[in-house]
Amino acid sequence: MYPFSLKNLIDNLLTLPGIGPKTAERLAIHIASRPKLKIEEFIQSLNSLKELKVCSLCNNFSEDNPCSICQNQKRNRKIICVVAETSDLEVIEATQRFNGLYFVLGGLIDPLSGINPEKLFIKELVNRVQKDAIQELILAFDSNIQGEATINYLKNVFQNSPVKISRLARGIPMGSDIEYTDEITLSSALENRKRLE
Amino acid sequence: MYPFSLKNLIDNLLTLPGIGPKTAERLAIHIASRPKLKIEEFIQSLNSLKELKVCSLCNNFSEDNPCSICQNQKRNRKIICVVAETSDLEVIEATQRFNGLYFVLGGLIDPLSGINPEKLFIKELVNRVQKDAIQELILAFDSNIQGEATINYLKNVFQNSPVKISRLARGIPMGSDIEYTDEITLSSALENRKRLE
Repeated sequence: MYPFSLKNLIDNLLTLPGIGPKTAERLAIHIASRPKLKIEEFIQSLNSLKELKVCSLCNNFSEDNPCSICQNQKRNRKIICVVAETSDLEVIEATQRFNGLYFVLGGLIDPLSGINPEKLFIKELVNRVQKDAIQELILAFDSNIQGEATINYLKNVFQNSPVKISRLARGIPMGSDIEYTDEITLSSALENRKRLE
Repeated sequence: MYPFSLKNLIDNLLTLPGIGPKTAERLAIHIASRPKLKIEEFIQSLNSLKELKVCSLCNNFSEDNPCSICQNQKRNRKIICVVAETSDLEVIEATQRFNGLYFVLGGLIDPLSGINPEKLFIKELVNRVQKDAIQELILAFDSNIQGEATINYLKNVFQNSPVKISRLARGIPMGSDIEYTDEITLSSALENRKRLE
């Protein structure tokens, strides 16, 4: 039997997504083997999380409220990129090709996992679009069933609204082989082919 | 760019074994999304780690020093099972087929990863064997190159000592880790341990 404190940490690690019993054990033993200073650094990083705010406009994690993106007056404030999670926002922002604002939906519709539309920030998105007279929503979701379901749901929600709704283009990802590309992707890549100039 | 506190937690998670950038991101966002009370529980479990002791006799993590196993007078105090890691000790103890004491070596010899014999508690093991007139050492290591190297090294170290040295029986399939072996296989491996000549 592991000592109580080690067992307790293992139990805590087990609540994290994708961490099974053996991994939790391995991580806990690794952490326990560290110098106390290292453990203290870990504790500090968790402690400072308590100061982390959520932007009331876009739901992104932030040090300020509203967040620096929502406060930035140089960005196009009439176009919003809707993402499922904070991590999606990060990768889009890293492309430096989007100058509008964001909205974090808090997930994708997935009834099998109990994620119904009511669990997402859809009402907040509708309010935001009306209040700020948003002109375009770019739906930037994962390309899977949950993403499609969420796109369809939002299309219905905004069908009587003047806001334009677009989705990310489907195509062949950089570095991939045509031979191994699925038919749906290939069909869209054909339809949306770009003329060379 | 993630807020500082989130970035800081991601960096801390990245120092854990087997956690890559994407996993660290996912875990950090998951933790940050939790209620503050849950974060506090996590912090408490890390905090109580600081009270965790290491047994000065066997190097195992423990609430007391010496640990409850080393203090137990009902166990055979002349036979020591030498393991690489605490987690190996746990699985052997779970078989309930070993009534001696343990010694955690702190790893296996692995020059390619910079783990030379000096990095392990071999000197401490030699002292322990002499001081307590240990009669048998059971080397219970992973069945791989590092395990074999450590067995050979210890065989040389103890060649002029009266202590008997045995290894777990080959019953553990080549290439597998002790930590993932089922209890029955492990029990027979203990029973059929072979004396080194």
